[in-house]
Amino acid sequence: MKYIQSAKNAQVKQWKKLLTKKGRDEFGTYLLEGFHLVEEALKYKEDIVELIMNEEVDLPHSWDYDEVSITMVSKEVAKALSDTGTTQGVFAICNKQSKTVKPNHGTYLLLDGVQDPGNIGTMIRTADASGIDAVILGNGTVDLYNPKLLRSAQGSHFHLNVFHDDISGWIEECKSMGIPIYGTSLEDGVEYRSVSPQKSFALIVGNEGNGVSEEILQKTDQNLYIPIRGRAESLNVSVAAGVLLYHLKN
Amino acid sequence: MKYIQSAKNAQVKQWKKLLTKKGRDEFGTYLLEGFHLVEEALKYKEDIVELIMNEEVDLPHSWDYDEVSITMVSKEVAKALSDTGTTQGVFAICNKQSKTVKPNHGTYLLLDGVQDPGNIGTMIRTADASGIDAVILGNGTVDLYNPKLLRSAQGSHFHLNVFHDDISGWIEECKSMGIPIYGTSLEDGVEYRSVSPQKSFALIVGNEGNGVSEEILQKTDQNLYIPIRGRAESLNVSVAAGVLLYHLKN
Repeated sequence: MKYIQSAKNAQVKQWKKLLTKKGRDEFGTYLLEGFHLVEEALKYKEDIVELIMNEEVDLPHSWDYDEVSITMVSKEVAKALSDTGTTQGVFAICNKQSKTVKPNHGTYLLLDGVQDPGNIGTMIRTADASGIDAVILGNGTVDLYNPKLLRSAQGSHFHLNVFHDDISGWIEECKSMGIPIYGTSLEDGVEYRSVSPQKSFALIVGNEGNGVSEEILQKTDQNLYIPIRGRAESLNVSVAAGVLLYHLKN
Repeated sequence: MKYIQSAKNAQVKQWKKLLTKKGRDEFGTYLLEGFHLVEEALKYKEDIVELIMNEEVDLPHSWDYDEVSITMVSKEVAKALSDTGTTQGVFAICNKQSKTVKPNHGTYLLLDGVQDPGNIGTMIRTADASGIDAVILGNGTVDLYNPKLLRSAQGSHFHLNVFHDDISGWIEECKSMGIPIYGTSLEDGVEYRSVSPQKSFALIVGNEGNGVSEEILQKTDQNLYIPIRGRAESLNVSVAAGVLLYHLKN
């Protein structure tokens, strides 16, 4: 088994590049960290390139990693690879897989310029839990393989079709198929509960500060709002997405 | 106007102590950062002790800070006080205010051992938006004045009764008043939509990894679950709280 002691090792330097979008684009791979995410990766064998683990880590007996190449590393290397303050010392290098679909009478969550990787990951997790078919990351939305995004998504990016695509194109295609498209807006539109649950729909949520762009809001069939009863100015976007998805999903 | 150049100044060292719970408990004050939160603080004059701002920052004309003491600081000091990577250079020192209430036929969100300050802040914001009367932080829940918590709450801690208290005591008091108490559980209980919206209730959500403690779940009137339709193991706790609060609130 390969063992790497020094964080200055060339292989470690290459792995560290995967913490940036540029590096992930260059190599076509990304880095997953922590027991839960690596366990999820092992269930999707086609995605996994290799395991990296600190020598002091015990892998759970239930894990099936016989066919996976493993590199052991020192604590120093594990720390260098970690995106968190306290690493669990277990990592996987995975292939970026483009799980692209086209609208087909399913249920879709479209993100328009959402910035915070934690919010995006949480929405991917919620979309998975609520039985949504695909999450589309529009222009201006951070990279799917951002480490913080993957941590918040808790492995749901393996379960779901999640990919970067053009939202305007999606709206056109949904329209041509008769799939209702709902925007979200604080100011205009209808109270979300006035729309009944649907077998097929596309829901669009927007940027943390500015919401869905005006241009996109013009193209939807209907824009929904969640009533604010107290003195908060708005809801967190991933909470709003959760309330709407659980209401709309038939 | 007072001006502080050096981050080694004794006053700066004291302010920095407010980034820890120990320091906040010692001085009875806490530090708020950023335009939005400081603007909210200015609306609640009794809470604010003083403003701190970098000399290059322009305060909005709409702000009413005539009666507030201001200390100007260098960029170096602003950076030292900041809990974020990129500070906006504006801060407020505020008094910790105990906004304690007792159950009184209102609507209440009780947090049992929730750990992540971002989740707690987001739930306080959601409770505010959905018109909940109070949020009770049970034992094992992080300090209300944690900087990350306050950032996620977006000022809603000024709008709402939020305080640390014993959850078991709250359950007893709610029971004696006939206020229904709902726990949340992935495994047992009833689907949340089988419970109709209520004028008065207490909802309990729990720790990110372990949920509501067994001891507390035994004491509730009913435990609710949100159906998981996909392959996610669970929902993020603040998303779950949003779905449940918007369903339960009459």
